[in-house]
Formats: sequence, structure tokens, C-alpha cells
Amino acid sequence: MPTYHPQLTADGQLKHLLSIDGLSRAHIERLLEAADPFVSVGDREVKKVPLLRGKSVFNLFFENSTRTRTTFEIAAKRLSADVINLNIGASSTAKGESLLDTLANLVAMNADMFVVRHSESGAPFLIAQHAKSGVAVINAGDGRHAHPTQALLDMYTIRHYKKSFHNLSVAIVGDILHSRVARSGIHALTTLGCPDVRVIGPKTLIPTDVHRMGVSVHHDMARGLEGCDVVMMLRLQNERMNGALLPSAHEFFKSYGLTAQKLARAKPNAIVMHPGPMNRGVEIDSPIADGQQSVILPQVTFGIAVRMAVMASVVGA
Amino acid sequence: MPTYHPQLTADGQLKHLLSIDGLSRAHIERLLEAADPFVSVGDREVKKVPLLRGKSVFNLFFENSTRTRTTFEIAAKRLSADVINLNIGASSTAKGESLLDTLANLVAMNADMFVVRHSESGAPFLIAQHAKSGVAVINAGDGRHAHPTQALLDMYTIRHYKKSFHNLSVAIVGDILHSRVARSGIHALTTLGCPDVRVIGPKTLIPTDVHRMGVSVHHDMARGLEGCDVVMMLRLQNERMNGALLPSAHEFFKSYGLTAQKLARAKPNAIVMHPGPMNRGVEIDSPIADGQQSVILPQVTFGIAVRMAVMASVVGA
Amino acid sequence: MPTYHPQLTADGQLKHLLSIDGLSRAHIERLLEAADPFVSVGDREVKKVPLLRGKSVFNLFFENSTRTRTTFEIAAKRLSADVINLNIGASSTAKGESLLDTLANLVAMNADMFVVRHSESGAPFLIAQHAKSGVAVINAGDGRHAHPTQALLDMYTIRHYKKSFHNLSVAIVGDILHSRVARSGIHALTTLGCPDVRVIGPKTLIPTDVHRMGVSVHHDMARGLEGCDVVMMLRLQNERMNGALLPSAHEFFKSYGLTAQKLARAKPNAIVMHPGPMNRGVEIDSPIADGQQSVILPQVTFGIAVRMAVMASVVGA
Repeated sequence: MPTYHPQLTADGQLKHLLSIDGLSRAHIERLLEAADPFVSVGDREVKKVPLLRGKSVFNLFFENSTRTRTTFEIAAKRLSADVINLNIGASSTAKGESLLDTLANLVAMNADMFVVRHSESGAPFLIAQHAKSGVAVINAGDGRHAHPTQALLDMYTIRHYKKSFHNLSVAIVGDILHSRVARSGIHALTTLGCPDVRVIGPKTLIPTDVHRMGVSVHHDMARGLEGCDVVMMLRLQNERMNGALLPSAHEFFKSYGLTAQKLARAKPNAIVMHPGPMNRGVEIDSPIADGQQSVILPQVTFGIAVRMAVMASVVGA
Repeated sequence: MPTYHPQLTADGQLKHLLSIDGLSRAHIERLLEAADPFVSVGDREVKKVPLLRGKSVFNLFFENSTRTRTTFEIAAKRLSADVINLNIGASSTAKGESLLDTLANLVAMNADMFVVRHSESGAPFLIAQHAKSGVAVINAGDGRHAHPTQALLDMYTIRHYKKSFHNLSVAIVGDILHSRVARSGIHALTTLGCPDVRVIGPKTLIPTDVHRMGVSVHHDMARGLEGCDVVMMLRLQNERMNGALLPSAHEFFKSYGLTAQKLARAKPNAIVMHPGPMNRGVEIDSPIADGQQSVILPQVTFGIAVRMAVMASVVGA
Repeated sequence: MPTYHPQLTADGQLKHLLSIDGLSRAHIERLLEAADPFVSVGDREVKKVPLLRGKSVFNLFFENSTRTRTTFEIAAKRLSADVINLNIGASSTAKGESLLDTLANLVAMNADMFVVRHSESGAPFLIAQHAKSGVAVINAGDGRHAHPTQALLDMYTIRHYKKSFHNLSVAIVGDILHSRVARSGIHALTTLGCPDVRVIGPKTLIPTDVHRMGVSVHHDMARGLEGCDVVMMLRLQNERMNGALLPSAHEFFKSYGLTAQKLARAKPNAIVMHPGPMNRGVEIDSPIADGQQSVILPQVTFGIAVRMAVMASVVGA
């Protein structure tokens, strides 16, 4: 991963969105504010604004994710962009063309934006470095590294329900080790001035140096949730569940699944978040997922607005 | 299958299209009339009207059907909607998410309409029950149960060529047992006041209680076609042809394939219909499929207009 | 292949684009001129013109080619058409429907244009013969036969850099035998009055009767490039590289790969072209592909404009 931040112009404007790491508080706040009007676009009769009319947006999904691709496709279409979905894995690479040649070709087709999902950490950075001036790159999830639009929609959701970050306690629960959602979320929370970020999970799923990111570590979930305002559950990926890192889905639920009993340790008005897709009965109990404190579906709604705001920002619309 | 009809609002307006069963004659007639202006849209230089501009239509195809998906995609685009194609089978379910969670997510993205194709009878009903108010569901074929837009386009075609239903004889020929096209067609014909609906096929492919739907049963095709105005052929599905229910495609054609000789028993101006895709030489002889009495291609053209009318109706456009 | 040219109307207007063979110099020049304004559309803020608004364009790709499909999809969307992508191989044929029935159905949906890619030479001709009046067919590559939009974008590129064809020497290098790009390119060059077209390659990859097309044949690449203005490299297809026709990719590069040393034999301002995707280190050395004389990426950019011009021409827009 590069240490410089190629997502900003020389005068500090956002030209790509590659990671939350490297964005200032002002950058994040501007993006959240920019999302506000797009939330109301989703409620209109005609859910469309002409900000990206005549722009060509390419969804470059090297890793399959129908859900994330759909959110970006909807966001781009509501901005009136032309959207081209490319399943890159299945195409040019089969003909032996390099990734960079494929990209150079798409740029030559006068692309305006690449939305990139890749299983390798750093791939969107590489793409941004090689995309010529005027082409914006949005990271839609790269390996274990970052998922900045997820972090932004999480922040939007928290801000919506809690108004301010300066006195919040936020707990992030589950597989911190493999989660780009957790990494990006921690960066966003600390940048926005959240004073108390806690990560909760088994030792095997928490990076040993995570405290350097300014968070406290808990292995006992009930204690970790004590008095918190926000509970961010992470998805436990299926491939972990059968692996050596965990005893079983059932055991995981007992220790780190969010139940009414454990949630009772948080503040009474604490909100419950999950990036989806949920494993009900593994990381979250169904009554909680569907309960009064759950804001999991509003996260999805805000996610469209936040992605519209990011897309509009990086093309300067 | 539910006995109530969740496709209507409290005051009897169409909010979903799930099955023909449960629609009144007035409902069906209104939909057919609504399709009239859309037929002419297909002939225009600019084949587009702005009725669904800014609406988000999701094609949810749990069962693959490129042809049906294409007709809905064209219909939605000619209404100026934004269309998102989702091959649900291949996506979230692989990640262990439940169908209802997937749907809740799409609703949270401010979906306006779901076009649903599913191999399980009743799936679109389940989806309509759980979709929140304001999201319309159109059944694009569910298991052996219903295919209401096919029935409507069939009725549109018959009305176009025969003007009225009140003195018609209509024969439906082939695999009645497994056909949602037959089920939906019979409902539509009897509701529209067609006095003589006949089903023709081998005993193994006709439900034993089909007479309760108000039709007569024939096993001899030539006799069954005697004097009829409309011959609706059904598609014989490949998987049946190799099964125990039928001797062979060749044998089937001999008994139940539509040939010039058999068609001669119908009225001289009888029309020949088929929902496609055709098995030439199995259920229909090629000269008949391409002959003067065939209205198989006009069915396709009317199908686009009827789907536009249904889509516009359920969103109240 | 038919000897008549079904791509022209009775009064000589272009109604389909099936092959360069059969087009007059005036036809080709008109298409190149028609592309000029579309190049500037690609540079605009709003890269869209309303010429094909409300038209339905079907991408019928019987052979997978994400890159070519993408260029046509972008071209159609920038003309404001509605685009439907159909992977025909995977759909109706699986249900046993014939190609001609599938096409008749799409025509009945009021299609305006078919963009056809097929592994069989002549397939787009067959489709054009059966498509009813008013439906335009564009050949996006058929077997070893033709790739007319590639030839047109190549001619556009040459004209852009060299202004005129009447005094040019053009060398086409590589697998002439299996290349529809070479066939279409040779037709276009000779039709446009290019006096010196040379094909360069090993005997096994050059058709024995190629001189009848008005070209000279070279097996020694350095000698063949002597003093030429344009070097058109062809893609060496992977399946050839492991076949009996060639010793190895490495051997091929030694004899027919474009290197600085070989390119030095051409004129100093010679341009280097390649239809993509490139096999770097097989048919072209990387420094040349990325070098000052390379116009490989401009070819891509011009390709969008040329396809827009062709689409607009065949629908008479």
C-alpha cells in the first residue's frame, strides 16, 4: 500500500476515493453533507438528477459482488450516467491481456469513472496511478484493505441517529482481522473525533497491533458493549466458519453473536448496524436484526445517497 | 397458494400482478385497453414514453429465461425506467443470505418494481407480501402456477383478431398439466366470458380435475379442434420429452402436433398461437408455424405493449 | 459467403454493415467523414447525442468478446439508444429454438439494430437476409471472414495521421491466414487507393492466393517494413501459439515481433497499430507498444466514434 495519498489533487480536492486513511475530517464531513440532498432524491417520484448525464461509469468487478455492484449501478443511474458493467475476470485476462492494458483501453474509450472491486489489497491504488487525468477511481472494496464507501455510509448512519461523534462510544464486533469494513470504519470514526472506539472479538480474529489505530480491545463481548451508543456487527465470512480460526458457528454465536441479553449492556437507545449480508444466528440474533434498535436497512438506503455523493464529488459535479 | 388476493388495493385497484386468478373481467379489460396506445409506441421513430422515468425496476430472475427477461427489460426501458438485472440465484444466496433479506435490501434501495421469475409456485406472492407499500411485484412466471403477462398478451392477441370473446371456441393443446401458460390462459378466457374452452392432450398431461376450471377435455386432437376459432399450442418442455410421461417427440407430434391436416378441422379463419420458444416438428409443424393463420410473432409484439401497460398500471402511471 | 451485397439498398445506401468487400470508396469515405463529429462528442462534458433516442439496439454475441461488446455498448449509449445485451449462446439455443426463430422474435419486439458477433463466417449475412426491412445488422466480427468496423477505425486512424492514402505504404504483419482484421483491412486499403499494401508473415500464416487481393507478400519482416508509413500488427491468437503452425511464441517474436530494430526500417514517422488485445513480447515489444510511434490507444478512441457513425448511418439518422 502506498504511503502517499493519490486520491487528492495538489490543492487537496478529492479526485479518487481509495481509502478513508488519508482523508481529513473536513473531507469526510463534506462528503456526508453532500449526501444529504441525495437521500431525498430516493424518495421522489422521479429518482433522477442530471449531474452525471453523458458520463461513462465502468463497474470493474474483479471479484463478484452483486449487492455492492447493484448499489453503485443504481447510484450512477440516478445521477443519469451511462453505466457499463464489466466482469473483468472473465474477459480480457482470458485473452492474456494485462490489467493495465485493459484499463488503458477503457480510458481510451473516454471513461469518466471506474468503480473497482478486487480481491487484492491495493488494486484500486494501482489503477488510480495509471488512469489518466480526468478519470476518477472509486474503491468498492479491495482485499482486506479498505471499503471506504461502506465506512462513509456507516458514518452517515451514525450521524443521522446520533447527530455528533464527539461523545460517542462505538463498538465494532466480530472478525476484525479480515475485515476491510472494520479497518475503514475505525479510520473514519477516529478522524471524525469519536473518543471511544472498541473492537470486540476472539484473539484469533483481532490484529495484534490494532490498538495503534486508537481503539481499545475487548474479548468479552458483554463487557465490551457496556454503555456504548453504537454496535457495529461485522459479517463472519463463511470460509472462516469452517476454518481453524474458529470452533464453530454455534460457538461463535454464543460468544460474539449479538443477542438481546448482550445488547442490554449497551445504552438503551444504542443503534445496531451490520454491513450485510447477515448470517442470522451466527453474528446476530434474528429478533435483534429486525428489532427497534436495528438501523441495518436505513444503512442500505443511506448507502445509495452516499455513493451518489462520492460519485458526484470525484467528477466535480 | 393464498386464497386471498394480495394483488389488489382495498378499493380494488391493481397494485401487483401475481395471477389472473383473482382479477375481475373489468381488471383484465382495463389492462388490455391500456395496452392499445403502447402498441403504437413500438412503431414510432422514438419508441419511448416518460411514464416510468426515474423509477427503478429490478428484474429478479431466480430461474433463467433470457427471452422473458428481455421482453420486460425492453418494456421498462421504453417506459424510461432504470432497469437493473439481477441473477439472484448466483449471488446473495451463495453468501447465505435469505431471500427475504435480499428483498428487504432491494426495497431499502428505493426499488419501485420487482419483476419476478421463480421455479417455485407462489414465490412472487411471498415477495409481494413482504415488499413494503409502494413497491409493485409482477409475476413473470412461477413454477407450474401462473404466467399472468403471458395470459394477458394471449388475450390481447385474441381480442385483436377476433374482436370479442363472447362467441369464441378456444382450444389449448399439449402439456396442460405442467403449464402455467395454460392455467393462466384458462382463467383469463373464462373470466372474459369465452363460452367454449377446450383442453386437448394425452391423459398423462391433463390434470384430472381440470373440468372444474370450466373447460372440456379432449384426447383426440382432430375432434377437439373441430370448428374452433383459436388454437393455442403449448410448448412441450424438453425434460418431459425424455421422461416416462411420453413415448417420444415423434409419437407426440403424430398425436398432438399441429399439422395442416389437423388445423383443417378448425374454422378456416382460426388463428394459431404459441408462447414460444417453439419446438418445430414436436408440437407444431413448420409450415403452420410460418403460415397465414399463425399469429405467433404478433403475440411477441403485443407482449411488449401488454407488459408496458401492466408496469404502468401497477405504479399508477 | 454471398457474392451479392445485401448491405446496400437498391439506390446504394448503406442499410447494413456486413463487410468492407462490396463497399465503394465513396461509402467508406462517407463513413470516415461521418465519424469526425463523434470524436469530439467523446471529449465533451456530456458525451451524448440524441440521434438514436428510443431505438432498441441488441448486442447479439454468439462468441464472447467483452472488449468489442463494450465498444458497441458505449457507442450506442452515447447515441442515446436503449441497449440490450444478449448472450445468445447461453439462452434460447439451450431451449432448442433455432437461430432464425430467436431473431424473428427479437424483430417482433421492434428491434432497430442487431450488432452480431459470431464464430461462423457469414452468420451476419444470414441474419441480415432474414431480418425484416427496417432492422439494421452490423457485423462485429464473423469467423475468419470480416470485421468491418475494425477496418473502418483502422482507416480512420491512418487518415488522421497520414491525411491521404494515395501515396502510402502499409505493412500488415503476422497471422494473415486466420485474421478477419487483415482481410477487412486489405479490402479497405485497396478500395481507398492505397498503392502499396504488403503482408508479412511466415508461409504457414499467409494464404497462398493473397496476392489476388492486390498485396505483395514478404516473409522477411525487416525487408517488408522497408520505408513503409504504417505498420499494422495483428494479434497472434493463443490457440495458434501452441499449435503445429508455429514453433513457439519466442520464435515468432524473433522473426515477426515488432522491435525497435525492425521498426527502424520503416519511415521515421511511421505509425504502429494493433487491434488489441496485445500479446506483449509475442507480436510486439513493450517499448514499441508504449512508444512515440504507437497509435494503438487512439485506435480505441476512434473506434467508438467510427461505431457511432456506422450505427447512425445504417438507421439513417
